[in-house]
Amino acid sequence: MKTNVLSKMGRRTAVPPISWLMHAALSRPKLISLAAGFTDNATLPTEFSRKLLNEILRSPKTGQPALQYGITAGENNLRQLTAQHLQKLDGTGAKNKSHSPGRVMITGGSQQLLYMTLEALCDEGDIVLVEDPTYFVFLSILQSCGIQARGVKLERDGLDLAHLERVLESLKRSGQLKRVKALYLVSYFQNPTGASTSIAKKAAALKLLKKFERAAGHPIYLLEDAAYRELRYAGEDTKSALTLPGAVERVIYTGTYSKPFAPGARVGFGILPEPLFTAVQRIKGNHDFGTANLLQQLLARALASGLYDRHVARIKRRYTQKARVMKRALAEHFPANVEIWESGGGLYFWARLPKGISAGVKSRVFQTALKNDVLYVPGELCYADDPLRRKPDNEMRISFGSASEANIREGIKRLGAVLEKFV
Amino acid sequence: MKTNVLSKMGRRTAVPPISWLMHAALSRPKLISLAAGFTDNATLPTEFSRKLLNEILRSPKTGQPALQYGITAGENNLRQLTAQHLQKLDGTGAKNKSHSPGRVMITGGSQQLLYMTLEALCDEGDIVLVEDPTYFVFLSILQSCGIQARGVKLERDGLDLAHLERVLESLKRSGQLKRVKALYLVSYFQNPTGASTSIAKKAAALKLLKKFERAAGHPIYLLEDAAYRELRYAGEDTKSALTLPGAVERVIYTGTYSKPFAPGARVGFGILPEPLFTAVQRIKGNHDFGTANLLQQLLARALASGLYDRHVARIKRRYTQKARVMKRALAEHFPANVEIWESGGGLYFWARLPKGISAGVKSRVFQTALKNDVLYVPGELCYADDPLRRKPDNEMRISFGSASEANIREGIKRLGAVLEKFV
Repeated sequence: MKTNVLSKMGRRTAVPPISWLMHAALSRPKLISLAAGFTDNATLPTEFSRKLLNEILRSPKTGQPALQYGITAGENNLRQLTAQHLQKLDGTGAKNKSHSPGRVMITGGSQQLLYMTLEALCDEGDIVLVEDPTYFVFLSILQSCGIQARGVKLERDGLDLAHLERVLESLKRSGQLKRVKALYLVSYFQNPTGASTSIAKKAAALKLLKKFERAAGHPIYLLEDAAYRELRYAGEDTKSALTLPGAVERVIYTGTYSKPFAPGARVGFGILPEPLFTAVQRIKGNHDFGTANLLQQLLARALASGLYDRHVARIKRRYTQKARVMKRALAEHFPANVEIWESGGGLYFWARLPKGISAGVKSRVFQTALKNDVLYVPGELCYADDPLRRKPDNEMRISFGSASEANIREGIKRLGAVLEKFV
Repeated sequence: MKTNVLSKMGRRTAVPPISWLMHAALSRPKLISLAAGFTDNATLPTEFSRKLLNEILRSPKTGQPALQYGITAGENNLRQLTAQHLQKLDGTGAKNKSHSPGRVMITGGSQQLLYMTLEALCDEGDIVLVEDPTYFVFLSILQSCGIQARGVKLERDGLDLAHLERVLESLKRSGQLKRVKALYLVSYFQNPTGASTSIAKKAAALKLLKKFERAAGHPIYLLEDAAYRELRYAGEDTKSALTLPGAVERVIYTGTYSKPFAPGARVGFGILPEPLFTAVQRIKGNHDFGTANLLQQLLARALASGLYDRHVARIKRRYTQKARVMKRALAEHFPANVEIWESGGGLYFWARLPKGISAGVKSRVFQTALKNDVLYVPGELCYADDPLRRKPDNEMRISFGSASEANIREGIKRLGAVLEKFV
């Protein structure tokens, strides 16, 4: 009698693949996890946070509002500071309409914003184009909501534009274009591959989407997820899609303070065009009528005081070093025929085994690695259920986020030894 | 071209009525709001929070995990402490299965838990029974999700059991019982009326639901929202539905630390039966993969140190006094033929004007009150869109939560003068 009481969503929502990985990790105390996208514990801003929270709570004038209910879209000071932060990153002026505080929404991490955006935009059966591979929790939302995913090939330098056009053409031919609502792009140091998509490619993608809108009968949004944008270890920041012509009406931008500051003080943000902003704001009213003020005020003070920037500079040095350690270990221990994608930021390396050798959850490579106490994320988990192609299973996401330098060296050594056996 | 891009939910989700009220309040600087369910600013635990956050963040051992990602269902120490807290309130032993930590989910306020529970349980077109009137943000979720609400009469001593049975019978006759998934009960000092439902009535309601399950073909849950439980100013706490036989399989219980501790450190919790617990946990993985750890650790430390209990005792004294001030002012200034519901807790009085006199949003009473700078929540906003009865519009929710004692006196005086004109 129990089985049928759940909603379609309740029945459909699958176990998150990552929870299984975490579970595997917990049962092996000596395991070195290169799987989790956790940030480095030692880099977490405990002292900065303590200082800032003390300042906020010391005075009733700032302490009481921080502990009170607030505004659904977010506190005005943090929305203002977030707009300025994005203006600075994008090198635009304060008068740029696309970066105005009134379009900023503050959320419980950018994950919540992705969720609510899909709620506001997509019905069951609608289609979202995603990079192939892409962020697996985004795929989980799609799966849970019954939204179809269509993969667009990803190259080392980002989205494959020719393939995007072919996918759109094919959807047009099959009459499915009217179900396509958005292209989801993790544009900076993508999770899982580390690949970035240049502003020129973003511009071309936006143009392509625009071109197919007439046939779709409605806007097709470019949903840019910039979660890893500030974790850059080399080169210059590239502009976001918000700087493109027409962005005010077609670009949804999501970002987060979790990865660059503190996941435990979960605050994310987004910029949304109308009518999405209003719809998402109303939906957020039903989710939680606004993200916890105390965390919003912590971030606002971190940004306003400059401690946020100091902290980001500090963690960048730390991650730069850890990325270097992992790169050296990969060069030393991985077989030469394993292709390594190195990126200038984020938390991940992407390794591609020769074709025909599986690194998937049930593969001998993964199982042997686990037996040898080292864990990675099988790349296959990051591919959408797209009926039009077989999921590649010869890839691995390897994170240097949370492991110590010693564990990075040892973990890659163990993994290299496993690969030597099978590759 | 824009109008059709949103999802059904995106198009359906209405402006929250409360946001309109807030807006009205903002444009009149001298307005006294007896509308908001905000807590009293002066009672917010700024000093306790500062002390506890200092303790947490001073040591890397506790500070780093508090700023890191955690577990989707919530941190184990807070789940354990929450289970103990509920065991204490309900006077049950730690071995009571219904109160076990493994069934506790920690969320961003209890609002988030209500939202996710409905996601896991209800499809568009399903039916949830609600008290008539009930918590209006719950009604907003139902509206947004396309779930139907059916009102069950509420008496001064809680749910009208005879009416509940009639409603179930009628749904059975019309073949709609298979769409009925739950009865939503704000059982302690209900928002908006202040009415409480006794444990005897909860037991009878659960029995009735059980009786109709065969015809429904699936479980019908009792969803008990205990948001105001700890804000009791008189008498003894009554047991929750978790203490009833069969509760382990049929009772969903939601509670919150927001109202009794701090809305700005938004942490709520719930106890869920299977298969709902698992479904909601997976859905939460997609929403945010776990509520901000820093807030969870703040609450855990408040509970473990006893500061939480001390704080609750303190705010109860304060609200008791404010409720007394409002009661006196109502007796002095309101016409005698206005029926006042007084409750021994919560944040609200409920006033019922003689039949035929509207206190609704468009009524002369409401508009005149606004012109005279006093705001209340029109009772009609708290009634479901139930096609089977006309919404009563002669009621008002009057809150003593956030106004000062002087403003409570002055606000009630203004409101009384308005009523003298029309009643």
